[in-house]
Amino acid sequence: MRALVPYADQAKRNGLRVYHLNIGQPDISSPSEVFETIKSIGIDLLPYSKSQGTDALRVAATEYYKKHDIEVSPDDIIVTTGASEGIFFLLHSITDIGDEIVTPEPFYANYFGFATISGVKIISVETKLDDNFSLPDVSSFEEKITDKTKAILICNPGNPTGNLYSKAEMEELGKLVVKYNLQLVVDEVYREFVYDCNERHSSVLQIKGLEDHAIMVDSVSKRYSLCGARVGFVVSKNKLLKDTILKFAQARLSPPTYGQIAAEVALKSSESYIKNSVLEYKSRRDLLVSELKKIPGIKVSVPKGAFYCMVALPLESAEDFAKWMLGAFQLDGETVMIAPAPGFYNNSNEGKNQVRIAYVLNKGDLKKSVQILAKGLEVYNSR
Amino acid sequence: MRALVPYADQAKRNGLRVYHLNIGQPDISSPSEVFETIKSIGIDLLPYSKSQGTDALRVAATEYYKKHDIEVSPDDIIVTTGASEGIFFLLHSITDIGDEIVTPEPFYANYFGFATISGVKIISVETKLDDNFSLPDVSSFEEKITDKTKAILICNPGNPTGNLYSKAEMEELGKLVVKYNLQLVVDEVYREFVYDCNERHSSVLQIKGLEDHAIMVDSVSKRYSLCGARVGFVVSKNKLLKDTILKFAQARLSPPTYGQIAAEVALKSSESYIKNSVLEYKSRRDLLVSELKKIPGIKVSVPKGAFYCMVALPLESAEDFAKWMLGAFQLDGETVMIAPAPGFYNNSNEGKNQVRIAYVLNKGDLKKSVQILAKGLEVYNSR
Repeated sequence: MRALVPYADQAKRNGLRVYHLNIGQPDISSPSEVFETIKSIGIDLLPYSKSQGTDALRVAATEYYKKHDIEVSPDDIIVTTGASEGIFFLLHSITDIGDEIVTPEPFYANYFGFATISGVKIISVETKLDDNFSLPDVSSFEEKITDKTKAILICNPGNPTGNLYSKAEMEELGKLVVKYNLQLVVDEVYREFVYDCNERHSSVLQIKGLEDHAIMVDSVSKRYSLCGARVGFVVSKNKLLKDTILKFAQARLSPPTYGQIAAEVALKSSESYIKNSVLEYKSRRDLLVSELKKIPGIKVSVPKGAFYCMVALPLESAEDFAKWMLGAFQLDGETVMIAPAPGFYNNSNEGKNQVRIAYVLNKGDLKKSVQILAKGLEVYNSR
Repeated sequence: MRALVPYADQAKRNGLRVYHLNIGQPDISSPSEVFETIKSIGIDLLPYSKSQGTDALRVAATEYYKKHDIEVSPDDIIVTTGASEGIFFLLHSITDIGDEIVTPEPFYANYFGFATISGVKIISVETKLDDNFSLPDVSSFEEKITDKTKAILICNPGNPTGNLYSKAEMEELGKLVVKYNLQLVVDEVYREFVYDCNERHSSVLQIKGLEDHAIMVDSVSKRYSLCGARVGFVVSKNKLLKDTILKFAQARLSPPTYGQIAAEVALKSSESYIKNSVLEYKSRRDLLVSELKKIPGIKVSVPKGAFYCMVALPLESAEDFAKWMLGAFQLDGETVMIAPAPGFYNNSNEGKNQVRIAYVLNKGDLKKSVQILAKGLEVYNSR
């Protein structure tokens, strides 16, 4: 994905406007209290916080979780420098080099990066765009488990798939990790972005009997448009795990102080803030899906949550097309940047013609982007 | 060191005032422009920055370095989430598991943590409190080099020793890393804290012919009392190394946005800010050393830079004494927290009776702290 950045930079230098459908950087304003509070802080220096994060932030997080029927104490929470650092800490804490983690494919591309750094192998369970990336039977996970397996890792709602795991599916996975003494690691950074009124998010921390086997990764980045705050959480009731993660946290001294203040205020913000964000993303999703479906030859997976949409294009190589859109195409001085899907697949042949579209643009821009994409496809395929 | 925290917490719960001589968290106000700027920022959400850091910060850093006769371009700088992350990235970038790095002992305790995470072995070159921790001949380094060695790592000025490497010493080490095709990694976060007018800091980046072998680690934490900003730098002209570090930086997406803004303003602040800080630390050092020398049986290493002082106490175990000071001693409702030195030694028998004292308290508190320490020693040794 990062390989496309120079092409986008060049397109901009050439005077093109580039719509970024490629990155999950939300555009909705953060709760205004965040910046009001930052401006009102009276400090004359910026100290380290505790390695596990400020008490105030961890208390605010427990109260937030309580509203979502997740009962944890501040001691169950370690504040990390983004969910990224959380995933890194926990992988290092639960695996040795050569160990394996099982995860549905396609998956968030950076899991690769963290696994590589930790010397861990990702074993993937196939899911299909044609099936809307729905989770295969739990036996598909079970057959991937070896004596090297240390965890099942899922993202719920899923990046890049938008898949949402049902309570029953979560409980099945829970039974599996208990049976094999594994950890069920769930990346819940998109928890609240669920768009269908008959669907509800089930947290891994709500599963009874899973106290020593459940690890939740969370972040304020997506929920409150605070990506640059670099504040995430690892939440678990497993004492040994928490102690181990804390050692990693101590080695890097402290998470960022301003980010923690911003996160604390955001977590205390009114519930209407999130409700409005979810309504906005939902209407974008509906618009995006209906507009995409108008494009001949395209296949769209309808996301139930998060803010990504996976699309199969009528062409050979999404990577080549993405480069071409930046380097050789424009419509009235504009083009789009999309994320080729192969980066989300373990098996690089899968998803070769797929792209991930992040709907983090306002509806006008989103509609315009799809028009550019449609025209681009037409021109690309008739070269 | 972290093992003492519960004792300090308990002492505070018991109503004691605890002077923190144990941690390098500076107390001098940051440049006031930092907070003025933060308050004036007009944003409504907090985006990711580039993985290598904002252009504005990297430009500001090059200008800062230029003032210190260090010629680098913004492309030579990768912004990291504190120097900690920088050390972690570069260790992962230059070593494989089982590799070795050579460093003078005692050294910054967290080098252990980063090396452990990276699966790297620290091989230490002994320096002695009795010699003011001066650097042994370069042959002492050379004899530690094996086919596993990937780097020589030094901290200049040194934490915990306060040692300052001369230009000649730096050049000798430079020759050594070229001869054996190693990296010379220098942690320069205390660069400006040099207290004797006939001494000058020599940066590893000033050594000619070392372009492919020099890595500087830096941070705004200590210099501008911005520990909580979590902004550091890895600076190098080695293209392959920069490309590798950037991959790690991309995996964690971005350094903190507010911290980068704070760092940029701080780096542009007036030179009088640093001059005044250095004068203040110098006068504290002079006071601390002269007060400590009055204590019977104590040996003091006079630091030339940074803001730590290593002291040998007339007792068996500095760890036991540090705990006792927090748990069983007080003078008029006050006590001190000190860092036992064994944490800074590879060989845990070395430094058993030594402590590190950080002079990050105002002179009144510092003097009071030494009085408490002196009285504590007297009572401890007459139990």
